[in-house]
Amino acid sequence: MAQASNSRIKVGIVGGTGYTGVELLRLLSQHPNAELVAITSRKEDGLPVADMYPNLRGHVDLAFSAPEKARLTDCDVVFFATPHGVAMAQAQELLATGTRVIDLAADFRLQDTAVFERWYKMPHSCPDVLAESVYGLVELNREAISKARVIGNPGCYPTTVLLGLAPLLEGGKQLVDTQTLIADCKSGVSGAGRKAEVATLFSEASDNFKAYGLPGHRHHPEITAQLEKISGGAVSLTFVPHLVPMIRGMFSTIYARIQPGARDTDFQALFEQRYADERFVDVLPAGSAPETRSVRGSNMLRISVQRPNNGDLLIVLVVQDNLVKGAAGQAVQNMNLMFGLPESAGLDQVAILP
Amino acid sequence: MAQASNSRIKVGIVGGTGYTGVELLRLLSQHPNAELVAITSRKEDGLPVADMYPNLRGHVDLAFSAPEKARLTDCDVVFFATPHGVAMAQAQELLATGTRVIDLAADFRLQDTAVFERWYKMPHSCPDVLAESVYGLVELNREAISKARVIGNPGCYPTTVLLGLAPLLEGGKQLVDTQTLIADCKSGVSGAGRKAEVATLFSEASDNFKAYGLPGHRHHPEITAQLEKISGGAVSLTFVPHLVPMIRGMFSTIYARIQPGARDTDFQALFEQRYADERFVDVLPAGSAPETRSVRGSNMLRISVQRPNNGDLLIVLVVQDNLVKGAAGQAVQNMNLMFGLPESAGLDQVAILP
Amino acid sequence: MAQASNSRIKVGIVGGTGYTGVELLRLLSQHPNAELVAITSRKEDGLPVADMYPNLRGHVDLAFSAPEKARLTDCDVVFFATPHGVAMAQAQELLATGTRVIDLAADFRLQDTAVFERWYKMPHSCPDVLAESVYGLVELNREAISKARVIGNPGCYPTTVLLGLAPLLEGGKQLVDTQTLIADCKSGVSGAGRKAEVATLFSEASDNFKAYGLPGHRHHPEITAQLEKISGGAVSLTFVPHLVPMIRGMFSTIYARIQPGARDTDFQALFEQRYADERFVDVLPAGSAPETRSVRGSNMLRISVQRPNNGDLLIVLVVQDNLVKGAAGQAVQNMNLMFGLPESAGLDQVAILP
Amino acid sequence: MAQASNSRIKVGIVGGTGYTGVELLRLLSQHPNAELVAITSRKEDGLPVADMYPNLRGHVDLAFSAPEKARLTDCDVVFFATPHGVAMAQAQELLATGTRVIDLAADFRLQDTAVFERWYKMPHSCPDVLAESVYGLVELNREAISKARVIGNPGCYPTTVLLGLAPLLEGGKQLVDTQTLIADCKSGVSGAGRKAEVATLFSEASDNFKAYGLPGHRHHPEITAQLEKISGGAVSLTFVPHLVPMIRGMFSTIYARIQPGARDTDFQALFEQRYADERFVDVLPAGSAPETRSVRGSNMLRISVQRPNNGDLLIVLVVQDNLVKGAAGQAVQNMNLMFGLPESAGLDQVAILP
Repeated sequence: MAQASNSRIKVGIVGGTGYTGVELLRLLSQHPNAELVAITSRKEDGLPVADMYPNLRGHVDLAFSAPEKARLTDCDVVFFATPHGVAMAQAQELLATGTRVIDLAADFRLQDTAVFERWYKMPHSCPDVLAESVYGLVELNREAISKARVIGNPGCYPTTVLLGLAPLLEGGKQLVDTQTLIADCKSGVSGAGRKAEVATLFSEASDNFKAYGLPGHRHHPEITAQLEKISGGAVSLTFVPHLVPMIRGMFSTIYARIQPGARDTDFQALFEQRYADERFVDVLPAGSAPETRSVRGSNMLRISVQRPNNGDLLIVLVVQDNLVKGAAGQAVQNMNLMFGLPESAGLDQVAILP
Repeated sequence: MAQASNSRIKVGIVGGTGYTGVELLRLLSQHPNAELVAITSRKEDGLPVADMYPNLRGHVDLAFSAPEKARLTDCDVVFFATPHGVAMAQAQELLATGTRVIDLAADFRLQDTAVFERWYKMPHSCPDVLAESVYGLVELNREAISKARVIGNPGCYPTTVLLGLAPLLEGGKQLVDTQTLIADCKSGVSGAGRKAEVATLFSEASDNFKAYGLPGHRHHPEITAQLEKISGGAVSLTFVPHLVPMIRGMFSTIYARIQPGARDTDFQALFEQRYADERFVDVLPAGSAPETRSVRGSNMLRISVQRPNNGDLLIVLVVQDNLVKGAAGQAVQNMNLMFGLPESAGLDQVAILP
Repeated sequence: MAQASNSRIKVGIVGGTGYTGVELLRLLSQHPNAELVAITSRKEDGLPVADMYPNLRGHVDLAFSAPEKARLTDCDVVFFATPHGVAMAQAQELLATGTRVIDLAADFRLQDTAVFERWYKMPHSCPDVLAESVYGLVELNREAISKARVIGNPGCYPTTVLLGLAPLLEGGKQLVDTQTLIADCKSGVSGAGRKAEVATLFSEASDNFKAYGLPGHRHHPEITAQLEKISGGAVSLTFVPHLVPMIRGMFSTIYARIQPGARDTDFQALFEQRYADERFVDVLPAGSAPETRSVRGSNMLRISVQRPNNGDLLIVLVVQDNLVKGAAGQAVQNMNLMFGLPESAGLDQVAILP
Repeated sequence: MAQASNSRIKVGIVGGTGYTGVELLRLLSQHPNAELVAITSRKEDGLPVADMYPNLRGHVDLAFSAPEKARLTDCDVVFFATPHGVAMAQAQELLATGTRVIDLAADFRLQDTAVFERWYKMPHSCPDVLAESVYGLVELNREAISKARVIGNPGCYPTTVLLGLAPLLEGGKQLVDTQTLIADCKSGVSGAGRKAEVATLFSEASDNFKAYGLPGHRHHPEITAQLEKISGGAVSLTFVPHLVPMIRGMFSTIYARIQPGARDTDFQALFEQRYADERFVDVLPAGSAPETRSVRGSNMLRISVQRPNNGDLLIVLVVQDNLVKGAAGQAVQNMNLMFGLPESAGLDQVAILP
């Protein structure tokens, strides 16, 4: 565990112009134990952050700086809110000076570099760092994260599907059929990022609903790899992502066939017990169902377990804010753990409703 | 078949103040063979229709009239865009004078009155008319509809699920497992109607996504009954409806396990052939996926067939405008058939995009 | 007036990949007297139009073609749904072969080439054609349009402001102070076009409201020039455009100070009489107010005249669909007039509500 | 000033089921110096607050209680988030026991009871309390608020218009013509509250823009009365509210004619100086314009001053979150002041963007 002196942790952000970047800024600017010291963007060098993100006026005084000026090695931790491939190019240098790394892209999510290369169309340039990196899903890897130097922060879809299935698969339980799992997932548009693209224009995405990524989505191998790690066996999951006309929010409807020998299981109790001590996982009472606005702007993930007509199909409903628990909030949760801070430091925002 | 003289069909609408009512008015006011002669609303007696629905100014000159003034028995056909229970109370009288009936509510959707009574919490008051009524899904029942006097116009969800599964189940085919079907459905908010309710306020439903009706949705028994009629055997379907923050549009993601003996089936060809002659069912080319805006305001239903990794799970994606093919458009399609008109008369609108 | 033979008018569209392009396609594919023969896009050469715009599947069979293959000179009329500057480069050649031109961009909107050059940052390359062109606002220039070979189709904002003020200014009337006019205008996001830009992403424009273009908007000089032409004197108008989180629709709130000598005017009657014979301008009854959805997808423009407390300030509220009456619908209305067709041919769609 | 002991202030809320109620709960549950002790609702007696507002799960453990059980007189302060007329019926009893009152409805906004009665259609039942009440716009009445026992929390529209015009009118300045002021205001739908009404259904309010309240809006006399108090003279303002399809946010575009003698005024500097010490009023740099999302979920109000072409018309643009600075946040700001707490205690949330 790192030493969290009574001074604040020095934090740097690489690539803060996207939505995970601005969300990190929102959270870290209110964090009682963190001090933002640098935020880099080659393109926006010199631009005050608040000029790009007017919500930060009065809260963040920093300007973007070109990477070479940023002195990231003076930071205690650096977040990478960058495209895939950037963190792995810089991690080694930072680690060498004692700076920790939390990557919000995919560079440290997949231990199998061949799989990484197939889905992300680039070679993995630093397998050594990858080997020591930890998959940053706190509720699954708390112990390892607290000792980690490098974190691969999970994808948004994986966070919901993994936490929705973990209680059913952990420890090699034979509760559900692991060969016929289905995750029908729905995401708000901010998940696509702040890139100028026709498909996510307001006039294209508003008042519309569609599936996408059917030939294959990059989060699919990430989910499967982690599920297999959790269950200790082969897992086959069908994953269908859809796009919802809302900015934030993710809703996953997960279908699992109950094994004949597990029909007497009290699944509600199973989930409640599994997450009883988790500050950011809320298992809803039996009979209720979640909605995405119940977590808008907060780091909470809510789960409901349904078993229609007490039959053989279990339905797990999971909601989160894709930019918070699905990205920046989870990254801060990892940071807290890595530096021995209270896990919820800076993450106690109440969701905004309506 | 009724005589469609060269004069126009006289049309009445009972209960035209809801969304299916205004949509009927939009379509019928442009229909080349229909003449709107009466639209009833006890509460709005005397109010010009265009005062309630400003889009109709310049297109519909009628005023609402109290039911007793409306002389519905002079009509060739009467549409019921009313709450459940109204059509069955008035159908007999209309039929007696030769007026046909198309009910957009549930009174004539379920042949089993016990099932009707369980789900709609009211006794069925006219089982005789029910017995002769025809389920108005044209692509399944064209012949019977053309001779019918009473139509039970299908629910919105059932339309998508039935047309999405029919090619797989018709004629007792053993292509997919009928015991593990899943329909993960998403609907725009207009499906909930124009009732003053908190749950469908803009500030509740906007920027939000949720599942609902998990204890059981009224469209579930309707879907199952029709699927069993189509397949000739028992069917078990899990049905999970969700609410999407958009006004119009329905998207159903249907999952079916391919039977071991059917793995060589060309499902794309199967669907294309089944619907080759259907004016309002569009099977998309292999590899593409539908979006709801492609049918916004039109009577078209679009289907895509997906089989990820050529595996054992078939995914059928179906979109429609819930107020058109899912309600008023389908009702007009039924009317056209009943009166020997071209099936697409008054229904050739191009969807509005963006 | 052109000869409209009993065969259909041959229509070409240059640059049909934007929103005014797809809207032209929607309208023209249903037009009883028009035949789409070519639609050009260098970038999308060969791509079926319906692959880009899935709403057109089953309605438009054309593919985009590179301009040089398109044989536009065989057309009776060519619409330019292109960036500014394209129509003026090609108009002369088309006119030479008898093909008429309707430009939906700004090339033929401003008679003063110095003003054009200042606002559009390019020289005007064909002042001769400009000189003979007609400003295509039918309700103001019907006679000239019917004889025109080249039309400058009005901007969306100008259409609302000009039709909202014309009855007050025409013929040098001294009804309102022409030096203190204010137009507070609100537009749906589709007005910004289908360009890949961050500012109009769903995640930027949704759930947000802002003013824009305050240093000066290109429609400002167009409005002023036309108002001065209408009134025959100098006009000073303040114009503030705002962006509304909706796809289609434009709402203009226009403020005009009533002249002391005009206080007894019946403004409601003035507007009703002015537009009594106009098919696409609807003056609402006194006391009612318009909403944009009442014209969604239709060519109608609706106006309401308000005079709070019978005071000295007149408020004119105007709504239109920015893509129809504000762009493609108006262009078709111009075409109809130029070819001696009924003015509403192909333009009788009822607005979609809800 | 009240004594703020080192124990927390005991807070009660009457009528917490509406949007201002849930927003008070969100803010107060995170307030370092407040303790929620009671929240009343006769209708929801016994229901855990978090069952109605799922965002509060894990943050608020209270249940609604019937008013008579609530022991509001034990509270240090009671907020009324009720319909108009409730606070004035209960204020006297609370004040008698030393409990302070902050009313978020209109009971203590208008000092002229005749005006109150005309607009709110009820007699004012406690003119004595009204006489001692203070209009709770901190930036105008800080001194009086800090000593007040009863606060009339301002309406949402008035907050924007008053802070937008105050620098121009205070102290009898002759900077702008006070007889021709115009406020063209746009509000998100949550301003209409959580009442079950057709007009604010998602399917009615989404994808739509309209003006409303043109015959006269209740906030109009409130604005005028305060403007006259500020300026010390008669003021005539035209006020046109509009409804924007977004949940939260208010945007006011205010037009004021510059007096001939004031043409040399540096209006940007005037506003900057006026609000230099205000924590929750942000004057934007010259040339920039505000957007509502920059304050979503925060208590900040942002102002931009525009003078097109250095002419005679001044345009002031103001944004706020109507539920925070326009309602609950402002109420908490008042509470802080009344109890000698730092003005921003519990109000330092960063706005959520995107």
